[in-house]
Amino acid sequence: MYDQKYLLEFTTDVFMRIGCSREDAAAVAAVLVAAELRNHSSHGMIRVREYYELWKNGRVNVTPDVRVVHETPSTAVVDGDRCFGMVAGARSMRLAIEKAAATGTGWVAVRNSNHFGIAGYYAMMALEHDMVGMAVTNANPLVVPTLSVSRFLGTNPLAVAVPAMEEPPFVADFATTPIARGKLAVSEKKGEKVPFGYVQDAEGNPSDDPGILRNGGGMVTLGGDRLHGSHKGYCMTAVVDIFSSLFSGANFGPFVPPSVAYLPVPENQPGLGTGHFFGAMRIDAFRPADEFKASMDHWIRTFRNAQPAKGEERVYIPGDPEREAEEKFRNEGITLVPAVAQDLKGIAAELGIEFISD
Amino acid sequence: MYDQKYLLEFTTDVFMRIGCSREDAAAVAAVLVAAELRNHSSHGMIRVREYYELWKNGRVNVTPDVRVVHETPSTAVVDGDRCFGMVAGARSMRLAIEKAAATGTGWVAVRNSNHFGIAGYYAMMALEHDMVGMAVTNANPLVVPTLSVSRFLGTNPLAVAVPAMEEPPFVADFATTPIARGKLAVSEKKGEKVPFGYVQDAEGNPSDDPGILRNGGGMVTLGGDRLHGSHKGYCMTAVVDIFSSLFSGANFGPFVPPSVAYLPVPENQPGLGTGHFFGAMRIDAFRPADEFKASMDHWIRTFRNAQPAKGEERVYIPGDPEREAEEKFRNEGITLVPAVAQDLKGIAAELGIEFISD
Repeated sequence: MYDQKYLLEFTTDVFMRIGCSREDAAAVAAVLVAAELRNHSSHGMIRVREYYELWKNGRVNVTPDVRVVHETPSTAVVDGDRCFGMVAGARSMRLAIEKAAATGTGWVAVRNSNHFGIAGYYAMMALEHDMVGMAVTNANPLVVPTLSVSRFLGTNPLAVAVPAMEEPPFVADFATTPIARGKLAVSEKKGEKVPFGYVQDAEGNPSDDPGILRNGGGMVTLGGDRLHGSHKGYCMTAVVDIFSSLFSGANFGPFVPPSVAYLPVPENQPGLGTGHFFGAMRIDAFRPADEFKASMDHWIRTFRNAQPAKGEERVYIPGDPEREAEEKFRNEGITLVPAVAQDLKGIAAELGIEFISD
Repeated sequence: MYDQKYLLEFTTDVFMRIGCSREDAAAVAAVLVAAELRNHSSHGMIRVREYYELWKNGRVNVTPDVRVVHETPSTAVVDGDRCFGMVAGARSMRLAIEKAAATGTGWVAVRNSNHFGIAGYYAMMALEHDMVGMAVTNANPLVVPTLSVSRFLGTNPLAVAVPAMEEPPFVADFATTPIARGKLAVSEKKGEKVPFGYVQDAEGNPSDDPGILRNGGGMVTLGGDRLHGSHKGYCMTAVVDIFSSLFSGANFGPFVPPSVAYLPVPENQPGLGTGHFFGAMRIDAFRPADEFKASMDHWIRTFRNAQPAKGEERVYIPGDPEREAEEKFRNEGITLVPAVAQDLKGIAAELGIEFISD
């Protein structure tokens, strides 16, 4: 088990050693460790190796000049200068919050960035300011539009965080596909099939083979197939892609650069890097904050008291599982799988520091 | 076949006869006829009877004082004074557009409203102003949260319209459930089963019975079941519900009043009427408008040229099917099912006007 503070310090140290400022390194570390705490380990410490390889391959700028290239009272465009996504992400969400404080809402589009970790981290930054926070990003193209076999979309997550009064906040943070890509890799390693409705083969037929992506297959959008509403999932994924790219001039859909160094950057890219989009809305730009938050308590209690289906024990509010994981992992420590710990040991050795594994 | 202009005139006349101003009646008619043109007849002329019955039962105010009750430079809250949803809807979307013109983006929350027709109509109002438009609403509770049997959510649609240059705009307009409720009614009338993944029974078991809602069953969220990501669909539906109610103080989830007079209004309502939420974002608040629109052309052409799955002829851009239907129906006329035409004849007779059926 690893103490979260230790992982934060170690990760900050790694990114400083490769050239990041302390502030930038801490921004990267904060989001990766937050992912571990919230039980989204697919976006946690496993990424240190991937980010390190991106840097070694010259795909990331560790001394970026992240700057605002355009703004209005409620909007801005930020150029990340090829930074790690967290560097532009945290700064852009802070800017959205500042704009919301001044004009009611703030909306910031980002270009020329990279993988930014869990979207929920940024959306949740708004909560302490009594604001609703939103964050989306596009990602490696692995997902097909409905009725197509072209892998033109990412698993494009959307996060929305809403503050409450006495209840913990509502935090929805979800990919717009039935599952995250990491789950396919896990099933494949275990030699297991996956349920139909996650992936299709190279012709577009339903498949239960988690390795099908290496044979021209694709992941499907939420809904699974046309009959079950995958065209609505396609709408969602497409909207996230458009918001993440078109407002800032980042790459869209099939042109989004991969978040791993072993995959090539697409040719003829029409934009700059990966894109994100952030929003903050002051709740008292609409209603007195106490009134809004008391109503949100009512919403949360109503839905928490929904009657469970037969055989189920409880009905969750979006954000409940992650918050409960975080409480547990903060107290008991974070478990890393041996391969990840080994990766961290290897990187530490290359950088002349130490990773103290448990 | 009916000419759309005739349906507009007739419907405007109906709503003027029950007491609406010409402007308000025209707003209602415009959205209902737009639904017919866009092949969403479940939200079209069939609603004239339902709205008429709501009025007869005193559930709608035909002379409302629709007013802004709070505002900041980029936000506003509108009280619909129990109006037909289109009256508050069109006015609130215009206000969002005005605010976006001034500050980059505009966001308007609405309370004390009723069913507003197709969400896409409002989102599309932004297009001619070179803005991205968004509209959401909550609706009759018929949908269960994941792992629950409580019908706490509506089919809560989300619409997003994005302008392009030479290509027609991208218009996503979709319920956050696998299907619209109207499809269940159609299957039931035909005596057909529906695919598993649309509805569940009173205990939460999967069902293929389209009539199950009358026996305690519920509709499920996009994804269908937990294994296929229905918790992500639940997140979407919940976010739409929260945006539609909490910002304005409208009713949320199980308290949303039904859009038909034969169902009772829920007791202990915490808010006012049905709620909506509208947004407009000036594209040149981010990038020069021509640059944005040229990029959107590129996006649309890229996705339109995606390779179809085996046996499929084309890949659609969100908004393609509706736009093609509209072109056809504007030229060839709109078909109404006999029961709807009969309803319109009956209402016309009661109001001392005439409905000329084909």
